[in-house]
Amino acid sequence: MKNKVMLESRAVNSFASDNISSACPEVMDAVVAANGGNAESYGQDRHTVRLESTLSQFFETPVKVFPVVSGTAANALALSVLTPQYGKVFCHEMSHINTDECAAPEFFTGGAKLVPIAGVDGKIAPVALSRCIRGKGNVHAAQPAVLSMTQSCEVGTVYQLDEIAALAKTAHDHGLHVHMDGARFANALVAINASPAEMTWKSAIDVLSLGATKNGCLAAEAVVFFKPELADRFAFLHKRAGQLLSKMRFVSAQLEAYISNDIWHRNAEHANAMAARLSQGLAALPGITLEYPTHSNEVFANIPRPVIERLAERGVKVTEGELDETAPPRFVTAWDSNIEDVDRLLAVVAECCEEPI
Amino acid sequence: MKNKVMLESRAVNSFASDNISSACPEVMDAVVAANGGNAESYGQDRHTVRLESTLSQFFETPVKVFPVVSGTAANALALSVLTPQYGKVFCHEMSHINTDECAAPEFFTGGAKLVPIAGVDGKIAPVALSRCIRGKGNVHAAQPAVLSMTQSCEVGTVYQLDEIAALAKTAHDHGLHVHMDGARFANALVAINASPAEMTWKSAIDVLSLGATKNGCLAAEAVVFFKPELADRFAFLHKRAGQLLSKMRFVSAQLEAYISNDIWHRNAEHANAMAARLSQGLAALPGITLEYPTHSNEVFANIPRPVIERLAERGVKVTEGELDETAPPRFVTAWDSNIEDVDRLLAVVAECCEEPI
Amino acid sequence: MKNKVMLESRAVNSFASDNISSACPEVMDAVVAANGGNAESYGQDRHTVRLESTLSQFFETPVKVFPVVSGTAANALALSVLTPQYGKVFCHEMSHINTDECAAPEFFTGGAKLVPIAGVDGKIAPVALSRCIRGKGNVHAAQPAVLSMTQSCEVGTVYQLDEIAALAKTAHDHGLHVHMDGARFANALVAINASPAEMTWKSAIDVLSLGATKNGCLAAEAVVFFKPELADRFAFLHKRAGQLLSKMRFVSAQLEAYISNDIWHRNAEHANAMAARLSQGLAALPGITLEYPTHSNEVFANIPRPVIERLAERGVKVTEGELDETAPPRFVTAWDSNIEDVDRLLAVVAECCEEPI
Amino acid sequence: MKNKVMLESRAVNSFASDNISSACPEVMDAVVAANGGNAESYGQDRHTVRLESTLSQFFETPVKVFPVVSGTAANALALSVLTPQYGKVFCHEMSHINTDECAAPEFFTGGAKLVPIAGVDGKIAPVALSRCIRGKGNVHAAQPAVLSMTQSCEVGTVYQLDEIAALAKTAHDHGLHVHMDGARFANALVAINASPAEMTWKSAIDVLSLGATKNGCLAAEAVVFFKPELADRFAFLHKRAGQLLSKMRFVSAQLEAYISNDIWHRNAEHANAMAARLSQGLAALPGITLEYPTHSNEVFANIPRPVIERLAERGVKVTEGELDETAPPRFVTAWDSNIEDVDRLLAVVAECCEEPI
Repeated sequence: MKNKVMLESRAVNSFASDNISSACPEVMDAVVAANGGNAESYGQDRHTVRLESTLSQFFETPVKVFPVVSGTAANALALSVLTPQYGKVFCHEMSHINTDECAAPEFFTGGAKLVPIAGVDGKIAPVALSRCIRGKGNVHAAQPAVLSMTQSCEVGTVYQLDEIAALAKTAHDHGLHVHMDGARFANALVAINASPAEMTWKSAIDVLSLGATKNGCLAAEAVVFFKPELADRFAFLHKRAGQLLSKMRFVSAQLEAYISNDIWHRNAEHANAMAARLSQGLAALPGITLEYPTHSNEVFANIPRPVIERLAERGVKVTEGELDETAPPRFVTAWDSNIEDVDRLLAVVAECCEEPI
Repeated sequence: MKNKVMLESRAVNSFASDNISSACPEVMDAVVAANGGNAESYGQDRHTVRLESTLSQFFETPVKVFPVVSGTAANALALSVLTPQYGKVFCHEMSHINTDECAAPEFFTGGAKLVPIAGVDGKIAPVALSRCIRGKGNVHAAQPAVLSMTQSCEVGTVYQLDEIAALAKTAHDHGLHVHMDGARFANALVAINASPAEMTWKSAIDVLSLGATKNGCLAAEAVVFFKPELADRFAFLHKRAGQLLSKMRFVSAQLEAYISNDIWHRNAEHANAMAARLSQGLAALPGITLEYPTHSNEVFANIPRPVIERLAERGVKVTEGELDETAPPRFVTAWDSNIEDVDRLLAVVAECCEEPI
Repeated sequence: MKNKVMLESRAVNSFASDNISSACPEVMDAVVAANGGNAESYGQDRHTVRLESTLSQFFETPVKVFPVVSGTAANALALSVLTPQYGKVFCHEMSHINTDECAAPEFFTGGAKLVPIAGVDGKIAPVALSRCIRGKGNVHAAQPAVLSMTQSCEVGTVYQLDEIAALAKTAHDHGLHVHMDGARFANALVAINASPAEMTWKSAIDVLSLGATKNGCLAAEAVVFFKPELADRFAFLHKRAGQLLSKMRFVSAQLEAYISNDIWHRNAEHANAMAARLSQGLAALPGITLEYPTHSNEVFANIPRPVIERLAERGVKVTEGELDETAPPRFVTAWDSNIEDVDRLLAVVAECCEEPI
Repeated sequence: MKNKVMLESRAVNSFASDNISSACPEVMDAVVAANGGNAESYGQDRHTVRLESTLSQFFETPVKVFPVVSGTAANALALSVLTPQYGKVFCHEMSHINTDECAAPEFFTGGAKLVPIAGVDGKIAPVALSRCIRGKGNVHAAQPAVLSMTQSCEVGTVYQLDEIAALAKTAHDHGLHVHMDGARFANALVAINASPAEMTWKSAIDVLSLGATKNGCLAAEAVVFFKPELADRFAFLHKRAGQLLSKMRFVSAQLEAYISNDIWHRNAEHANAMAARLSQGLAALPGITLEYPTHSNEVFANIPRPVIERLAERGVKVTEGELDETAPPRFVTAWDSNIEDVDRLLAVVAECCEEPI
């Protein structure tokens, strides 16, 4: 095996997920800086207090903001104010809330029912949503309450602005609230070159789970309300869920730094670029096809089984569907992905593809 | 319209559902008889106490029994001891627990997730179940916990004994508990001419929702445990759900009378026979086809829209899918369905079919 | 023991509780009469439909009514629309919701906190309530939401109209909703000779658990809303809790008969009279004192231990606190209590008291 | 006012709570150091993996450890595996879980009932606990399940080892699990000069909420299981609650640094010493008495109203009971409290006391 390209340990895991990435320097610096002496607790500190105006500026509209420390908490808490306990939450069948949150949405909502919808490229089509909405006002049926869409989607694709607006309109026409799971919000923004306002409230989104952890923070997400009245009871739910941190300043400082100076944009742009490079490289190899178009920072590639085995021999363990064994290998790039790592991975895969199957 | 057959009001609604039927005389007599003076409360009365031995005899094995007053309560309570709050309950996409119980299973289980499975004729195929079972031991995934099957099915079909056993075996092989929603248990028993034991524990069913209300009771169902250890905590959940009635004797007396002297069998046999007659009559008419085979006491028939409209003019309102507008008209027979009503309905439909469309 | 008065088995248990009593003839007749042929299901039947007007007349104001089959369900469901899931429900420390419902209120409300309040004779004093109300608007505190008072109280006492009004006013002044647990509503009405209107909405009660089971029904209670807007979402919760019976007519018919022709009054009047007779008889015996004044149909008497033991020898098992071993023996009379049984019990106790201790 | 001592803004708030304090340098350094490149996500990183052995060493026994980010989450999650949903959690009436967590314990446990117990100096007496335990096995009663004790207590006192053992024994004798809320665990350890093992499993504690945030971390707590079998299902509940962080390394690194090199001890020792100095100083002033003995890092002092008002004039706002207006002023010291600030505060209070009342 002397002549074979071997990936170093570091590179091996480089594309397992964007949540293996580190925090970017600006965010870490902000955490350190926030540590100067006493600060009010439970979100009364100056970082948290001014976060609302920072994000209102970012979104070009007054918003209500509640920092939390995980995407699961953001999504489940957001949903808990949008649906009654006997409500239905419509979502893509592959959505994170449906497949990767260990029934947290059901827990936080007091037992709401997630209704999984199939859809091409990880997206929900308006007509597919319409078809699922039944039983409004019928006491035997869990009541249609929320549409939750993911941007960018679980499979790395993104909705275009008109797609968001059309889907959200369909939802609103049926009296649903509209939630966006923005765990990779920045990657989507960069992908469609839209403004935060355009991709949210201008497209009729009511509540956003704004993710920042994957794109350069330590642990920082926020639930952002574009209709302030929806947030009326949220502070209590936030506290009750154990998400109101006593030293909240350390979360809010991350979000502040992340939004400031377009750090979010810089980070996401790099991640998307690395994914594009990886995607193009893989697609050019014989026998490899993309399962989904690469819109943001995730690449799903169909790789022949023998190639996967050869990769394993070289120390490259590709991440296949943990929850769905039929899912193709996934590669995720991050703000700190290395172009050398991308190219080295491509070189190894190329070599593995060259051998006869 | 002078010469047209017009259905009287009574007949019009006769086939809307079996829960519009009355209680049979033997059951009502038992309720009246149970009213003789004082009796211990909260299930310590003699009717409730001996119900366990009555049903143990009925099922030919020692069972634990808890009477409840609605099928929704029976199902949701049964599930609540079979799944952790972060569990998955696999069920047919058309199952009552998934479509008609206003998220009661999610409520009683503390937020478990119902996983709807498609399947021909209202049944779940073992392979379809297997395909859905994923993520065991993975903390990100709601955990596979229960299979809930319905016998007879929502669409009036029934599983044969070997089908039940095969499906239950698949479930058990994956470590699931197996629940049977027997809202129309007696109709299914009659349909496949099996014994209660054969259709339950001998086919690897763990817990049964034993329905009696639809087949001649006022309001009486029972949660029946074939593995007594699963019932350890049930008494508390039963009470907590408001289903432990202070004067439980009046529910237990219904169940006693229902089981005694094969009243359940007589009632179900009649209902099934009426459904068969109606089904054959409808299927013989031009332009009408059966959507599902008629195994027990429900008939689903595809009737041309103009025929439905003509029926409405004659006062016959067919029950179409309230929760699913694509569902075909449904006719349900009961223990007290009248053969004259069946024939009169067939005559009216026949007349409506004769006119050119 | 030849000369000693021995109680027959029937009498022995006669005063264990009012839920050991039978149903009164008029109620049972109504159930039988309701069984005439088909009827709309799930509360669309004529009995249930007209119950709202029947009870609106009874209460002299338009009410919303939902029949249920247990007091626990009535209370827990009522509370579930009056408190957010992070709310506080203020109640007497001895109240049924706090001590006898196996955490059903916590379950149905999604985790609200019951705040037990001490108070003389089973009643809550307005000042005691005020003292407990803290933390409004503070996210760290469960939020004050509901006062639940019991009429008649757990210990057989009753609030006078001015007491109800004063307590309810205190609650409303603090922004609470007011619930009345009326498991023994009729007994209280008779005791204070008030009208149903006076004892509820005219005294600022918002929602009532109207009990009928203990006073002559088989299993029939109702949640009655005096502010219809509070009932907006109730139909879904009612269904989700498994309390929307398919053959609801059999519950509603009980309530109809119970309200009609003042059956409720006749039954309660008799029960109260029997309790008064028993209470006076006991209080006149040497060494026996009343723990609480006997206002309605419950008698709590301090009986010396040796007397209790002698009673046991004669087959009289007095009901001592099952949940609180410090509680004194309780005797409950019902609509069907026998004056002979009362007198026979008094004679036995008297004899046991005469022997030297 | 020229001659009056005026406190600077910084000092004013210095004693509001220990959660206003910053993170100590060692902990912050560890967070920065943990940021070196990729790391496995969701607790598979090396910091989290080795935390279990670090804490097993710390506690001198094998433990199961789950990091979380708030004390509320630690407590509520811990309780959720110790009680059935219909269980009772016995706790001091002033305990944090009962008064300051917005019904999080009720939420996480699925509706368990907290039973508040009164007790001198914030402690529960074994006999008081015993008296509350009733209704075991009775389906009408929420079932006795857990004792939760707080060390150090809400009012700054601490249980001695024999007190812990006696209370835990009483609980175990009644079949309860025993939880310790150790939000200020280190302060208590220092106060009684015990080892972590002695204060927990050697005193029969089953599960500990190990607090670190207040004593020098950013946001780091841990649920520690001394009986590993109790943790069987915890990983799922942890995830479902949104407490399994994707970049868990940043929490675990804090805990590692905190435990290493006795940082926890140094920090707590300083905080306790500052509290002792403040306590002694206040107690020596005319008209001021201590409400509770000062065992750890909290001082509760009865200060005459005019003195409080004079302090306010000088810019010293004392923290009075936010949730209980009858609570006396509280002063909390922290790892970073300044001896100069303590002395300056004492000087101001002394001056305010000197003026005639």
